[in-house]
Amino acid sequence: MRPAPSQDEVRRQNLGALLRHVHVHGATTRAELTTTLGLNRSTIGALTADLAGVGLVSEEAPRETGRAGRPSLVVRPESDRVFAYAYSVEVDRLRAARIGLGGAVLDQRELDRPRGLLAAEAAPLLAGAVKEMQQGVPPDAICVGAGVAVCGMVRRDDGLVRLGPTTGWVDEPIGAALGAELGIDVPITVGNVADVAAFAEHARGVAAGCDNVIYLYGDVGVGAGIIAGGRRLTGHGGYGGEVGHMKVVRDGMPCECGSRGCWETEIGEHGLLRAAGRSDARGRDALLAVFDAADRGDARAQTAVRQAGDWLGFGVANLVNVFNPEMVIFGGTMRDLYLAAAAQIRSRLNSNALGACLEHVRLRTPKLGADAPLIGAAELAFERLLADPLDVG
Amino acid sequence: MRPAPSQDEVRRQNLGALLRHVHVHGATTRAELTTTLGLNRSTIGALTADLAGVGLVSEEAPRETGRAGRPSLVVRPESDRVFAYAYSVEVDRLRAARIGLGGAVLDQRELDRPRGLLAAEAAPLLAGAVKEMQQGVPPDAICVGAGVAVCGMVRRDDGLVRLGPTTGWVDEPIGAALGAELGIDVPITVGNVADVAAFAEHARGVAAGCDNVIYLYGDVGVGAGIIAGGRRLTGHGGYGGEVGHMKVVRDGMPCECGSRGCWETEIGEHGLLRAAGRSDARGRDALLAVFDAADRGDARAQTAVRQAGDWLGFGVANLVNVFNPEMVIFGGTMRDLYLAAAAQIRSRLNSNALGACLEHVRLRTPKLGADAPLIGAAELAFERLLADPLDVG
Repeated sequence: MRPAPSQDEVRRQNLGALLRHVHVHGATTRAELTTTLGLNRSTIGALTADLAGVGLVSEEAPRETGRAGRPSLVVRPESDRVFAYAYSVEVDRLRAARIGLGGAVLDQRELDRPRGLLAAEAAPLLAGAVKEMQQGVPPDAICVGAGVAVCGMVRRDDGLVRLGPTTGWVDEPIGAALGAELGIDVPITVGNVADVAAFAEHARGVAAGCDNVIYLYGDVGVGAGIIAGGRRLTGHGGYGGEVGHMKVVRDGMPCECGSRGCWETEIGEHGLLRAAGRSDARGRDALLAVFDAADRGDARAQTAVRQAGDWLGFGVANLVNVFNPEMVIFGGTMRDLYLAAAAQIRSRLNSNALGACLEHVRLRTPKLGADAPLIGAAELAFERLLADPLDVG
Repeated sequence: MRPAPSQDEVRRQNLGALLRHVHVHGATTRAELTTTLGLNRSTIGALTADLAGVGLVSEEAPRETGRAGRPSLVVRPESDRVFAYAYSVEVDRLRAARIGLGGAVLDQRELDRPRGLLAAEAAPLLAGAVKEMQQGVPPDAICVGAGVAVCGMVRRDDGLVRLGPTTGWVDEPIGAALGAELGIDVPITVGNVADVAAFAEHARGVAAGCDNVIYLYGDVGVGAGIIAGGRRLTGHGGYGGEVGHMKVVRDGMPCECGSRGCWETEIGEHGLLRAAGRSDARGRDALLAVFDAADRGDARAQTAVRQAGDWLGFGVANLVNVFNPEMVIFGGTMRDLYLAAAAQIRSRLNSNALGACLEHVRLRTPKLGADAPLIGAAELAFERLLADPLDVG
């Protein structure tokens, strides 16, 4: 337990709490802010004035309420003017977006990513997308930072991608490469795609209000973003959540990480295509074709989907016993697998997970869908703003 | 992010921070407290006076330092007067202790626990031990609460033991039973033994200063106390850390939890005795006999220990990939297994864990030894005190 904050810290913390509230919940009356934050009216007024002074929020009279008395002013995040850049480096595509305070996607670009493309090659492509988007940015807009979501293990201290088994990246400095290319003088924060997608769903998606959440994200491999006790679980170096590399078969199939029998060899893209007799195929479309075939009655595809679903339930049961979450979210290709094999997953969960750990678990698909990595990457940038709002710009 | 604390909360938080410092680090000069806590001298003086006023700390002149100038007063926790009761319900024994503020074991009693003994039967035995200890309590002493460590899954809200596969407990209200028997008007907090042992090692043991820790605790079964980002991972209902019930073999040996192939069927008491050809034996002594036999060159015992060590490494590798800890602690019977099979464990870790997750992991045995559950149970009680020190008694 730390000592209580100083006067300066108190002000920063209260500014952050107010700005976070309108960032997450949108326009809010001063009266509601007073109640929700437990601060008095004059403090709310002073904090709002400070935030408005640097252009982060605006105030306006509310619409006619029909009630008597002076209406409470509405505090609104400056979503069109205050924004972060968000990037997503995925196995087969690159995305860039401009996300407003409040979480709205203001603009977005998508590019193919040839397999094997490294950070130094990806950065100029993403920078080109940003240049295009900059043409639509109002002259008085404020860019508060940039965040990157990437498939791979990201060192927290400097955003180095240590290992991306599915992207082929080893020690790729994507944050530094983007910083050099963009020529924008804002901090760039890098996070694992499952971590930042979980962060987004926890901040403003299906897991809002849940303190213990496992967000499984499948692309070619499988990772997890984990919220424990209301906070992101990152681990010592930032590499926590590599659930795809839990071994589920002692001498199983070789995995791209160099080991064998990892969970993702059974539930990831390769495992499912192999089980469906389509080892030569790859990519999201090939995977979706298996689900389609199963849907249309193809026996081999059905067996493959059931089998992968059983393995998905097997691993989720382990995670439920270890984390006792209140929600498990199935994102990326895990969403498709969950929807196609929910019965197998539930059955395996019921037989493998401890009753007490399982009793309040809700299984869900993401609310933010494919935008979650971008929204989460932007949240990384907004976190810095919320920690010290008046330090903006 | 919450708004900043109010004036009252600031005072409570600072009182808690100062008391925690001397509780963990022992007697400390005012000058050191000023530096460490980052508060000014007059604030430290006022906080110390408040804490001394309710009998939680005392102040005295330091021993002669030989330095010039007025020496800084030393603030000392009232370890002999301020205490918590701690209980530990284990598979084959019951323990009760009186633990002073500062973490010293002031008194301790141990009783056999016949297998099958339920909460309503255990409580009077523990209450008897407390009655004995009460004779040695100074008349002006302050009991701040009681904590219980128990092998089993503990519901956080009310301390109900939902399931203790190795104790045979199902929905046993040990906290309520102890409260009724003891007739002491103090709050009783119940926690899983691995959780509270981890808490103790994190507060004042081998993991002091580590923010990401896995403490494996073996008795008959195996559980973990997990510290993530500096905080205990409890999960939604309090059941997190049931790592012994990760499935490592798809259709493995039956487990006492009702499922099959759980990790503890390979590394727990039954698994090791079975592998050593001693399935009829049970208990800690039988287990130690296997390690002894292996040490003396018994081939079957050596094979059993190597095999169990390999499985121990297998599961730890999974946890390393999921949590990216900086320390793994082997407690209870896991300590014996770790010491007997360190080579197998390290080898399996090196081949199964991801390099980045593994690079800063230290493998350790507990510092607090067999007292960790008791010290951790007392810490549960001290937590309440530290949250609001002036509410004592």
